Amino acid sequence: MTESVLDYMTRLGRAAREASRVIGRASTAQKNRALHGAAAALDAARLELVAANELDLAAGRANGLEPAMLERLALTPARIDSMIVGLRQVASLPDPIGAIRDMSYRPSGIQVGKMRVPLGVVGIIYESRPNVTIDAASLCLKSGNATILRGGSEAIHSNRAIAVCIQRGLAEAGLPPAVVQVVEVTDRAAVGALITMPEYVDVIVPRGGKGLIERVSRDAKVPVIKHLDGICHVYVSAQADLAKAQRIAFNAKTYRYGICGAMETLLVDQAVAAAFLPAMAEQFRAKGVELRGCERTRALIDVVAATEEDWNTEYLDAILSIRIVDGLDQAIEHINHYGSHHTDSIVTEHQGEARRFMAEVDSSSVMLNTPTCFADGFEYGLGAEIGISTDKLHARGPVGLEGLTCEKYIVVGDGQLRGQEPV
Amino acid sequence: MTESVLDYMTRLGRAAREASRVIGRASTAQKNRALHGAAAALDAARLELVAANELDLAAGRANGLEPAMLERLALTPARIDSMIVGLRQVASLPDPIGAIRDMSYRPSGIQVGKMRVPLGVVGIIYESRPNVTIDAASLCLKSGNATILRGGSEAIHSNRAIAVCIQRGLAEAGLPPAVVQVVEVTDRAAVGALITMPEYVDVIVPRGGKGLIERVSRDAKVPVIKHLDGICHVYVSAQADLAKAQRIAFNAKTYRYGICGAMETLLVDQAVAAAFLPAMAEQFRAKGVELRGCERTRALIDVVAATEEDWNTEYLDAILSIRIVDGLDQAIEHINHYGSHHTDSIVTEHQGEARRFMAEVDSSSVMLNTPTCFADGFEYGLGAEIGISTDKLHARGPVGLEGLTCEKYIVVGDGQLRGQEPV
Repeated sequence: MTESVLDYMTRLGRAAREASRVIGRASTAQKNRALHGAAAALDAARLELVAANELDLAAGRANGLEPAMLERLALTPARIDSMIVGLRQVASLPDPIGAIRDMSYRPSGIQVGKMRVPLGVVGIIYESRPNVTIDAASLCLKSGNATILRGGSEAIHSNRAIAVCIQRGLAEAGLPPAVVQVVEVTDRAAVGALITMPEYVDVIVPRGGKGLIERVSRDAKVPVIKHLDGICHVYVSAQADLAKAQRIAFNAKTYRYGICGAMETLLVDQAVAAAFLPAMAEQFRAKGVELRGCERTRALIDVVAATEEDWNTEYLDAILSIRIVDGLDQAIEHINHYGSHHTDSIVTEHQGEARRFMAEVDSSSVMLNTPTCFADGFEYGLGAEIGISTDKLHARGPVGLEGLTCEKYIVVGDGQLRGQEPV
Repeated sequence: MTESVLDYMTRLGRAAREASRVIGRASTAQKNRALHGAAAALDAARLELVAANELDLAAGRANGLEPAMLERLALTPARIDSMIVGLRQVASLPDPIGAIRDMSYRPSGIQVGKMRVPLGVVGIIYESRPNVTIDAASLCLKSGNATILRGGSEAIHSNRAIAVCIQRGLAEAGLPPAVVQVVEVTDRAAVGALITMPEYVDVIVPRGGKGLIERVSRDAKVPVIKHLDGICHVYVSAQADLAKAQRIAFNAKTYRYGICGAMETLLVDQAVAAAFLPAMAEQFRAKGVELRGCERTRALIDVVAATEEDWNTEYLDAILSIRIVDGLDQAIEHINHYGSHHTDSIVTEHQGEARRFMAEVDSSSVMLNTPTCFADGFEYGLGAEIGISTDKLHARGPVGLEGLTCEKYIVVGDGQLRGQEPV
């Protein structure tokens, strides 16, 4: 094509900004109609979706994509089902837009409160999984935002086919097509343009591996909702119910190794280590989890030595590092120093310890007597999740519809003036 | 000194991070004791403060500082009074830290809610006014944050003298000195270091002119709470009470020309322009406000022509641009296009118009029948204000204690496990 990538992206950006005004004031009913319409269109287009996906899979096989990557890329009937269910679920969530809170009279006679509004234009950058196209588009649409979706080039045919279904939903609801735009060029420069157009894009959500997120964060001129590592800890205190602690730690590690909420380091109070660790280690070994421990741990159970690097590592695998700590203070210190401020849990029956841990551990989720693998938008009741933010500003932890909105002040008067006696 | 600026700033950063753990868990009583202690120390140190300030003023005069700059730099007895009052007011504000909201049970049996916590370390970069040292330090302290304050080099003696008083307050409350640190080197590289240490600094608040804020935003590797232009509008609709509209527009422009909430452009509906503008213009002229208008405005009143640049300009002065618009749609379009997303107001008695304006104008404050100059943390009931954010993410509009905090998820269980039947 003769249009440069930058011109193309600018055109998309301008169209998104304009569309954001329309979707921002769309009624809840209209937005839900678009979501249900897209769901029906997906259901009617199963053959086309599979055919488009087959093109991507064939190209992937020809290009020597790894089996895990091909697996993520595949649009199976079950995955199409779950996209359809997902759209309907998002339609059933309460509309966050326009909610007004805390309106109160001030001494001057004005009323001041806050109204929840869309962010405007959300850019999503993701890798191989085409179902992200639906997840991201539906959450952005329901929260009144226009979206620019930039999926991986290896999924381009699948993403285009999905986009056609979304467009049918938008058309049915009388919404402009630019409410959801899929970037059609696979050139890498498209990402560079998308993340440096603050006039057209209000926030970027990168979904994918650490490399992608770091690259996007480094180069972006637009705010980024980041999800970096999940180096999660469970601390078994001297006041823990040890049977409960063992169940929690086992679940935290083994529910799924690959999720960001999986426990990577187990901290055990020295007072209960001898009573706790042998049975715990036995259970992990029976499950095939490789254990690595500090010197004190190795005096109790036969494991390889953990190095400094282990405390800094998100394994996302059947590996666990174990450290014996002197007490609550050292546990909190270890977590705040080595952790990634994602999700950390204490197992204790002691109220004072729980209170301190919850207040002082500087993570997006802090937990008591429950495994870290509960860190998830659905489990938290958000209805859906666009990611888990490890940032402190704006959204922190699982990000649902609310994380795609902000609040503005609204001020209502009846002729009150500043610096003059109230009427 | 032999230590490099970078080493010095790193040392400050590390100390701030450590101190942030202490102030983050300090009790409300302890924080208030520090604030009252600092107030008493300021009161006792009036002579030293004035002497230190005299050094800055003398240097400023020798360096040919402009009178307006010298005026801002001066620590008059009234300004010392207001710093003392400010500290006591912040002490009297409710402590936002530790507040828990929305704890509710999930189907799994876990309870999920949110807890308000400090951001951690806040870096403040400001220019000549030494009272910012107290404003910023007190708000950060009350919200449980450690602060690194980097004031203008022209105020360094004043800032040091104020810092001594803050240190007395901290010591009285048993809090570490690094809770509030004043950067002692005047080298510009100190700012460069401060804004690129995400490991030690969680957020930067620049307070000063547009140049400072743009420079900081461009180079920062740490999130910045920005306050850019305040190009504020009042739109007088066809459904306005014109007498009320005239009072509101006059107050919006003339309450104070130099504040960010001052009206810079007046939009008037074409249906009422002929009835409204002549008397309005007369009142502005009597006050000495220079008027610039669009072609249609000039057909009604005798003013110079406004150019495209006028719609984009924050005058902060006795100048006003006037445009006649065709109706609500064009007014909203003008504001969203030319405005700075700060504060905009509609004057109307029509409910449907008001509802649309409030929802569709994309500004940090939207107002109905009240002048834009009300945009202010005190007027909004925040008790104090560290700035007015024109960002959408995190804090939007006047930023008080809450804007210096974030929320983390807290999850409480009693042995519930994920992926298993609830107990």
